[in-house]
Amino acid sequence: LTSPASSIDHTLLKPDTTSEQIRSLCEDAVEFGFASVCIPPVFVALAADLLYGSQVGVGTVVGFPLGYVSTAAKVRETSEAISLGATEIDMVIHLGSARERRFDAVEQEIRRVVEAAGSAPVKVILECCYWEESVKRALTESVVRAGAAYVKTSTGFAPGGATLEDVRLLSVAAAERIGVKAAGGIRSWPECRAFLAAGASRIGTSAGVEIVRQWLEARNL
Amino acid sequence: LTSPASSIDHTLLKPDTTSEQIRSLCEDAVEFGFASVCIPPVFVALAADLLYGSQVGVGTVVGFPLGYVSTAAKVRETSEAISLGATEIDMVIHLGSARERRFDAVEQEIRRVVEAAGSAPVKVILECCYWEESVKRALTESVVRAGAAYVKTSTGFAPGGATLEDVRLLSVAAAERIGVKAAGGIRSWPECRAFLAAGASRIGTSAGVEIVRQWLEARNL
Repeated sequence: LTSPASSIDHTLLKPDTTSEQIRSLCEDAVEFGFASVCIPPVFVALAADLLYGSQVGVGTVVGFPLGYVSTAAKVRETSEAISLGATEIDMVIHLGSARERRFDAVEQEIRRVVEAAGSAPVKVILECCYWEESVKRALTESVVRAGAAYVKTSTGFAPGGATLEDVRLLSVAAAERIGVKAAGGIRSWPECRAFLAAGASRIGTSAGVEIVRQWLEARNL
Repeated sequence: LTSPASSIDHTLLKPDTTSEQIRSLCEDAVEFGFASVCIPPVFVALAADLLYGSQVGVGTVVGFPLGYVSTAAKVRETSEAISLGATEIDMVIHLGSARERRFDAVEQEIRRVVEAAGSAPVKVILECCYWEESVKRALTESVVRAGAAYVKTSTGFAPGGATLEDVRLLSVAAAERIGVKAAGGIRSWPECRAFLAAGASRIGTSAGVEIVRQWLEARNL
């Protein structure tokens, strides 16, 4: 059995996160072998320095968590993050455009961020709790067409986080053309396992260490 | 008795806000005579167009609501907003710097945004629910020194919003050198009146129309 660590984005996005907490997070990420850290933009240079030479990716967020900065601002945030050492970008779509059913506008904005990200994979947050099924399907199609690497359920800052139902829906809609990242409220190994089984290829959580510990215990039973 | 409208920033910052809602908000702002609208960056150009020639200010948010984009990003967001017609800027401090008690860093970042804002007043959000009294006092001093126009309690997206206790504390700390804006959870005229009496000179709320209606009813009794 493989450790779930390689599917986990080790995440710390609390507004009052400190440098010391980022140092500790990066140490844990190397020790446990997480896929990446997912951290605030202000700490990208620090994390890139701490993780230099490791296998752990440096992920940050763009237009986060409300998604309503301008496209130009999202593009600039992405370029700046990449130039400081980010290797993965988690962006939030403009939910207002989605609410207006302007899926072309959503797609065009994502494409601009994907271009700015270069070779770094872009994960696109739909904030699923706001949408009915048909919208989630249409948005996933926009994400695929725009050239992003993952469609992601949630920011963790909205009224609802990841649900198994949403991950199944996004997986079917993505049809293996892109990955699915589940995030928002995943706190235990049983939950993590269920989300992976539902079709998630990446899990965003701030409970990664605890999840791996629970997985080790379960394996040793 | 003056209407409270002239002290209210008529606010709509929900992530899925649409153009149509911004149109309606701006119409109400003119009709009721609010101090300004406070809206997402993507809608600044639209609001500036709709409010052209009126007395209503065009306010938007920077580094909102988590405060941890880079200083460069906050400066660029501010410049872009001003160039699109914003006349007031509500920014969030980097809470991580405040957590590390690096008040000089907080002050320097605010100063950069104030410079980028030119003649537009900058309101600086401390996100009071995170801080003990001494930190709130030190942060208010940073805001004053950096040349901002207001210190503001909350984003409305944190676990806690405005409290009368915080507004009194910020008012004493500001000592009439700058204004105090109370925001986060203010929904009625009695609440609004209490915050004004506690020392707030500006109220941020999405319930402005209801507050003015309640004020009119109370006045006519």
